[in-house]
Amino acid sequence: MGDNKIQIAHLERICASALVSVGVPSEDASLTAQLLVRSEAEGAASHGLLRLPPLLERIRQGSVRPVTAMAVVKESPTTAILDAADGIGQVAGYRAMELAIQKAASAGLGAVTVINGGNFGRAGHPASLAADHGMIGIAASNASPRLVPNAGMKPMLGNNPWAVAIPTRGTPVVVDMANSIVANGKIRAAKNEGQSIPEGWATDASGNATTDPAAALKGALIAFGGYKGWSLSLIVDMLTGVLSGGAFADDVGSPDDTSRPQKSCYFFLAINVRHFMDVEQFTGRSEVLLKRLKAASDKDVRIPGENSGHNHAAAMKNGVLVRPSAIKSLDETFKKMGLPGWDAVLERTR
Amino acid sequence: MGDNKIQIAHLERICASALVSVGVPSEDASLTAQLLVRSEAEGAASHGLLRLPPLLERIRQGSVRPVTAMAVVKESPTTAILDAADGIGQVAGYRAMELAIQKAASAGLGAVTVINGGNFGRAGHPASLAADHGMIGIAASNASPRLVPNAGMKPMLGNNPWAVAIPTRGTPVVVDMANSIVANGKIRAAKNEGQSIPEGWATDASGNATTDPAAALKGALIAFGGYKGWSLSLIVDMLTGVLSGGAFADDVGSPDDTSRPQKSCYFFLAINVRHFMDVEQFTGRSEVLLKRLKAASDKDVRIPGENSGHNHAAAMKNGVLVRPSAIKSLDETFKKMGLPGWDAVLERTR
Repeated sequence: MGDNKIQIAHLERICASALVSVGVPSEDASLTAQLLVRSEAEGAASHGLLRLPPLLERIRQGSVRPVTAMAVVKESPTTAILDAADGIGQVAGYRAMELAIQKAASAGLGAVTVINGGNFGRAGHPASLAADHGMIGIAASNASPRLVPNAGMKPMLGNNPWAVAIPTRGTPVVVDMANSIVANGKIRAAKNEGQSIPEGWATDASGNATTDPAAALKGALIAFGGYKGWSLSLIVDMLTGVLSGGAFADDVGSPDDTSRPQKSCYFFLAINVRHFMDVEQFTGRSEVLLKRLKAASDKDVRIPGENSGHNHAAAMKNGVLVRPSAIKSLDETFKKMGLPGWDAVLERTR
Repeated sequence: MGDNKIQIAHLERICASALVSVGVPSEDASLTAQLLVRSEAEGAASHGLLRLPPLLERIRQGSVRPVTAMAVVKESPTTAILDAADGIGQVAGYRAMELAIQKAASAGLGAVTVINGGNFGRAGHPASLAADHGMIGIAASNASPRLVPNAGMKPMLGNNPWAVAIPTRGTPVVVDMANSIVANGKIRAAKNEGQSIPEGWATDASGNATTDPAAALKGALIAFGGYKGWSLSLIVDMLTGVLSGGAFADDVGSPDDTSRPQKSCYFFLAINVRHFMDVEQFTGRSEVLLKRLKAASDKDVRIPGENSGHNHAAAMKNGVLVRPSAIKSLDETFKKMGLPGWDAVLERTR
C-alpha cells in the first residue's frame, strides 16, 4: 500500500462515521459511504470523496435531511413515484432502483420516479444494481440549468446524467454520461492551471462563446453533438421532473447553493432479461458481441464500464489513491464539525 | 398546388398500389405507404419515397416477404418477442409498438423486441404512436456495421437509429436520431457534388480518416461525441439484437445487398403516463417546460420533432414536393415491374 493509498474499507468507515455523526442512520450512512468511495475507486473522483463535505454541510444547514424517508406517492405493480423528501440522493436513488428491480422481478418491467432528491452520485451505480440482478437498468436524474445546444441560449436544462447498465459474464456494460462536450471538472481544472479552454466547450453568462474558464464556470456548457446531446438532457428532464410531478428545468436547485434543497428528480427502469431469455443465454450473447467489438481494432477497444471496473478491482487490492485536495477538504470539514481531523480519523480506522 | 407538389393522399395511393401489385396485403400496403409518405412530408426524404424502389426490389427477390407474419416467440403481460420473418420493416415496427402500447395500457409498461426485421423507417414513427396514446414511446433498431468511435477501428456496430417520443398538448416531442456525426446522405451528396468532406466525419475502408466522400461511403461513419455516440449504438444493439435472440453486430445484413434479408432487430418500450399522473396534467407540465425552453433564447429554439411536425402540416395543406431523383427512381421501378410509369400513375390517382 503506497503512502497515499487507503484501503476501501477504511475510507468507507471514515465517510460513514462522519455521516452518522450528523444524524444519518447507520445503514444509510454505510450505503452513501460505499457509493462515494466506489466513485473514487472507479476513477470518478468528481463523484467521490469531494462530494462528502458539501453533503455534510447541507445536512448541517437543513437542505438535506439525514433521514431519507422515501414515501410512496403513487404505486402500481410496475410503477411508482417516491418522495425522497430532501433526503440523501445516493440513498434515494438506490432505494428507488431496488423497488424498480423488485417490480421487474415479478412483472418483467419496473419504472420508478423520485421527487425531491439531492445529487444521486454516479448514475451508473443504481443502473448496475439492476445488472447485478440479471436485468437491464436505466437511471437518470435532472439537475440545475447548465446545458445549451449552442452559444446564444440561456441554460434551461441541466447537464442531466443518465446511465444504462447491461449484464455480461464479467463487468456489466455501463454507459454512464452527462451531455456536455466536457465535464465541468475539466473547465475548473483549466481555470486552476491558468489555461484557456477550446472554443465550443462553453459560453459565458451572457451566452457568448468563451475560451475563458472562469467565464465558462459562470455560463453554460455546450452539449456534445449540439442539439443531439441537448435532446438527451431534454428526454431526461421529461422522464424525471415532468413524469414524477417534481421539479424540472430551472426549478431544480443549484449544487452550489447549499442552503436550498436541490429538488432533483430521478427515473429508474429495470428490464428483467428473464422475460426474454435465460440470463445465462443473454450474457453469453453479450459476450459474443463484446468479443467482436474487441477484435475490431488493433488497438485496445474500451467497452463502456470497463475502465471503472478495472480501476475498482485495482483499488480493492491496493487501496485508493486519494487526492490531497480531497483530503484537505475532508480534514477541514471534519474539524469544522468538531470531529477529529483526517489524520486522527485515519489512524483510528486502521 | 405547385407543379411538383403532390397531395399526400395521392402519393399514398401510388405507393400502396405498387406494394399491393407485388403481393402485400392492402392494409399493410396502406400502412407502409403512409409511413414512407409521412417521412417525405416531414422533410426526411432519406426515409421517404426513395425507400420504395429497394423495398419493391427486395420483395421481388424474396429478401423481404410481402406478408409480415409477426409470430409470437415469447410473451408475458408486459413483454414479448415477435418474429417478423423477413416481412416489411415499417409494418413489423408499427405492429410491435401497437403490442407494447396494448401491454402498457393494462400493465403500465410494455416492452417488445422483434427479430428478423427489415428497415423499419423513421424510429420516430412508432415512438410517436405511443405519444398519440398518452404514453412515452421508445423505438430502436439495429443495422449493419457502419459506425466507429474514431478512426482506426473496423465498424462492428450499425449507425443504429433510436427515438423517444413524449406527449405534449401539441406535436409530441420526438427525439429521433442515428449516432453518426452526419448522416450517410450528406456524404453521398458531397460525392455527387464533387466536394470533399471535413476530416472527422468518416473513415475509409482501411479505417483511416478520410475527406474523400467516395472512400467514406466504403468505410465507416464516425460517431457524434466519439465514444459517447458509439455507446448509444452499443446500447441499441444490446436492447434489440442481443435481448431479442436475433441478429446483432455484423450478423445484420446490409441495406445495399437486396438479395439478402437484413435480419434487423427492434426494441419498443411504452410507458403509460396514466400510471404516474393524468395525461392532461402531464401534457400541461410538458407545455410549461417547452415554453421555458422557447423563452431561453432570442432566436428560435427548435424543440425536437417540431420541424417534422411543421413540415408535415404544410404538406397536408399544400402537398409534398417530391424530388426529381425520387420520381425518376419510382418511374423506372414501376416500369420494370410492368406497371404504368409515374406520369400515368399520377394521372390515374387524380
